Amino acid sequence: MGPKVNLNADIGESFGKYRIGEDDELMKIIKSANIACGMHAGDPTVMNRTTLLAQANGVSIGAHPGYNDLWGFGRRELRMPLKDIEHLVAYQIGALEAIARVNGLAVTHVKPHGQLHNMAIVDYDIALAICKATKAVNRDLIFVGLAGSQLEHAARNLDMRFAMEGFADRRYEDDGNLTSRTLPDAVIHDAEEAVEQVVRMVTEKVVISRGGKRVPLEIHSICIHGDEPTAVPLGRACREGLERAGVAVVPVTEMGI
Amino acid sequence: MGPKVNLNADIGESFGKYRIGEDDELMKIIKSANIACGMHAGDPTVMNRTTLLAQANGVSIGAHPGYNDLWGFGRRELRMPLKDIEHLVAYQIGALEAIARVNGLAVTHVKPHGQLHNMAIVDYDIALAICKATKAVNRDLIFVGLAGSQLEHAARNLDMRFAMEGFADRRYEDDGNLTSRTLPDAVIHDAEEAVEQVVRMVTEKVVISRGGKRVPLEIHSICIHGDEPTAVPLGRACREGLERAGVAVVPVTEMGI
Amino acid sequence: MGPKVNLNADIGESFGKYRIGEDDELMKIIKSANIACGMHAGDPTVMNRTTLLAQANGVSIGAHPGYNDLWGFGRRELRMPLKDIEHLVAYQIGALEAIARVNGLAVTHVKPHGQLHNMAIVDYDIALAICKATKAVNRDLIFVGLAGSQLEHAARNLDMRFAMEGFADRRYEDDGNLTSRTLPDAVIHDAEEAVEQVVRMVTEKVVISRGGKRVPLEIHSICIHGDEPTAVPLGRACREGLERAGVAVVPVTEMGI
Amino acid sequence: MGPKVNLNADIGESFGKYRIGEDDELMKIIKSANIACGMHAGDPTVMNRTTLLAQANGVSIGAHPGYNDLWGFGRRELRMPLKDIEHLVAYQIGALEAIARVNGLAVTHVKPHGQLHNMAIVDYDIALAICKATKAVNRDLIFVGLAGSQLEHAARNLDMRFAMEGFADRRYEDDGNLTSRTLPDAVIHDAEEAVEQVVRMVTEKVVISRGGKRVPLEIHSICIHGDEPTAVPLGRACREGLERAGVAVVPVTEMGI
Repeated sequence: MGPKVNLNADIGESFGKYRIGEDDELMKIIKSANIACGMHAGDPTVMNRTTLLAQANGVSIGAHPGYNDLWGFGRRELRMPLKDIEHLVAYQIGALEAIARVNGLAVTHVKPHGQLHNMAIVDYDIALAICKATKAVNRDLIFVGLAGSQLEHAARNLDMRFAMEGFADRRYEDDGNLTSRTLPDAVIHDAEEAVEQVVRMVTEKVVISRGGKRVPLEIHSICIHGDEPTAVPLGRACREGLERAGVAVVPVTEMGI
Repeated sequence: MGPKVNLNADIGESFGKYRIGEDDELMKIIKSANIACGMHAGDPTVMNRTTLLAQANGVSIGAHPGYNDLWGFGRRELRMPLKDIEHLVAYQIGALEAIARVNGLAVTHVKPHGQLHNMAIVDYDIALAICKATKAVNRDLIFVGLAGSQLEHAARNLDMRFAMEGFADRRYEDDGNLTSRTLPDAVIHDAEEAVEQVVRMVTEKVVISRGGKRVPLEIHSICIHGDEPTAVPLGRACREGLERAGVAVVPVTEMGI
Repeated sequence: MGPKVNLNADIGESFGKYRIGEDDELMKIIKSANIACGMHAGDPTVMNRTTLLAQANGVSIGAHPGYNDLWGFGRRELRMPLKDIEHLVAYQIGALEAIARVNGLAVTHVKPHGQLHNMAIVDYDIALAICKATKAVNRDLIFVGLAGSQLEHAARNLDMRFAMEGFADRRYEDDGNLTSRTLPDAVIHDAEEAVEQVVRMVTEKVVISRGGKRVPLEIHSICIHGDEPTAVPLGRACREGLERAGVAVVPVTEMGI
Repeated sequence: MGPKVNLNADIGESFGKYRIGEDDELMKIIKSANIACGMHAGDPTVMNRTTLLAQANGVSIGAHPGYNDLWGFGRRELRMPLKDIEHLVAYQIGALEAIARVNGLAVTHVKPHGQLHNMAIVDYDIALAICKATKAVNRDLIFVGLAGSQLEHAARNLDMRFAMEGFADRRYEDDGNLTSRTLPDAVIHDAEEAVEQVVRMVTEKVVISRGGKRVPLEIHSICIHGDEPTAVPLGRACREGLERAGVAVVPVTEMGI
């Protein structure tokens, strides 16, 4: 059996009359969808539509819980008690589970959104609150998160299924961490270079660091940033590049985690 | 085996720093709780606390979905497409299911709130949207609703488990319907009379109508209005009166529906 | 002095990361802007940006209060006590006044949004609540509303400045009322025909009804529907057609009301 | 003319069906009200009722803007761009101004709420954003804030009227700053001691520090914490103690700032 990888993207972030993101196009590229759950974005009807769109494209369904901050799109720092985070995450996963079940589908992974995600990457307590909520709702859920982050530590400590996530368009350091966005070459703007990076990640299990070193890196899933104007062409290039290189692009549920 | 009945109340309607209702006291009286799900009232942390409080009192857990209208407490008429109602109800049931599951518990019934409930009682299409969502989320859920209402018709047509609800403090007409609130004696203010009515409902399966007729009426559950100042004493009087009359007060799940 | 008229449109209906409407283009066409006030759409920062955009284009600033229903974009029927409507409208006008004042500008007119507007057109009590709030906030505010509607009656009874509004793309009946949208030819789809209608309204003070009659009609302002895909080209055609016919297109404050 | 001081409290923090705070009692004690503006608490109808209650008690009206976070009651840290803070504050002041004007009244001061206030005390940029918005809405507004805080610096730099606020129930350090709440004796629990402190502040312009030193301190206004269960008795004791000591308790507008 040849190499395989998952492609995921944040999706279903429209709200009422407001449309955002190229969901129809993205759904043809990815294999796992992180669906907004009504707090930072999304509403019950958008969630339903997105769930059906995932199904039609053979895309597995994940919850994308965020802060309850529609004005800030879940991207503003919001400090709340850990217990509130825990309940807020459980609430959102459950809401999407019900919408999925109405359509005969199931939620199979969780990936937190925006600032909740950013804070959890570096703060073990927040990571643990999110992971605990996820496991308590359904212990079979796969947690998708940055490899090496506090989210991975928390998920491992809770004995959860964890999908290590890598990036097509982000530069890596010699220690395997992402290059800080404060540095000028943190983002890879050239599509060809991005495709090369993901193919190398999957087929050789290494990444070429900013310093030129071959750094070992194992990943299960590659994140396509849905809200960049280049999301669709870059995502499509990755998908095509991977398949040309003989890599199967599959739902995260088929990654053997 | 002697006669039995369920007592239910709306509960968990606090929000953040705002406290409302005498949940601690009510939980000792009722056997099934209709828990607000974060739209007309309630927040994820309040939902969690209420779920644990129900468990501690041997009270079964139900979802109490309402319109997304915190300002109006779900009591204002809000006209939305039937599909939006369907998704909004599924969303709320799922959210509570997850919170319950985190605590090792399960949602076993659904009763809609406020104006959503009022509209569904008389509008078959709205009733059907609510019932369809409920059944699609979990076909074993018991729907609690006014006997003879469009909610009962919709639930029956969908082959759902339906708990017929009666009232301690509302007067009935000769045809078994509730006396309109526009009439002066629609509400029974005397606790003793209310207790007599519920005992008669359960033990004789009749109600004495406003016109003095003995009207046959079968009920599974009696609603305690949680937000009236008299809720707790009236509820306690009903519970004690029923038990004194040899009626077992049980969760709605034990009503054999 | 030649004939003149005002062009108005609903604008500033973006929210946070969500963008809606072609505000930049519309602002070049209209002369009075109905700016969303944060309840059905708009947020404080969008309001500020829209206010500045109006200023840059010589467009006068109006408040566009709506129901507090972002999910439904203020287009769903929401029944609330008249006093709540009154306070809700005052609140929104005041909020925009402050944002305008920060930029050295002033709110000079009010036009209600969506379902609040639709209900006020036919319901005198709602119309009166809106007009009372508007007058109480600032008695010099010009109320922009459908000629002949309950909004006009309420505004007249309160001795308010009232701008009678006409439509480029709606058909009229022999009695001067709009043709019901349930009829097939209620909407004028041909831009040339729409332009002819507005020019005739302004220069001859008549409209040709669906039945072919010349019906007298006096208007101060023509509404450009901002959220139709054809809004910008139709609006631009009207503006150009009016100016070609020698009509001055001016802010509603210069209509001598 | 004898000594005088203002008493202020946060008020009008109910929302819809939710009641919080003892507004009726507090209004009889204070002379300036910080009224919630619909973001962290309050709704347009509550704002209207509170405004009328202030008027009936001869209490001057202030805006109490907070973060748009009803769940957290404005007490959670929420990081947003400074421009958003500026517009959010202007929005809320304007909303209350309109409600006040409807009742023939005017907003005469501003005091920010909860976490927005806490952050502004120590963060000059946030303080400046709030003060700039306040001044831009109405340059005559009195800003009420902690003496010596970044709010005072920002207000002074903008040449604004600034009311220096002191506390009845908080201990002070030798340098005139409040004792940190992390220290055991930060809060004065004894009513008599609190009354002594405020009388001394006003009549002698000093406070006895935790270390027993007489520290010079000039204040215009004393804050009564409305949400503590002891708020009303403590507030009443302060008011009576001040008046017994010959101090006139007046609206902040009469403090000659």
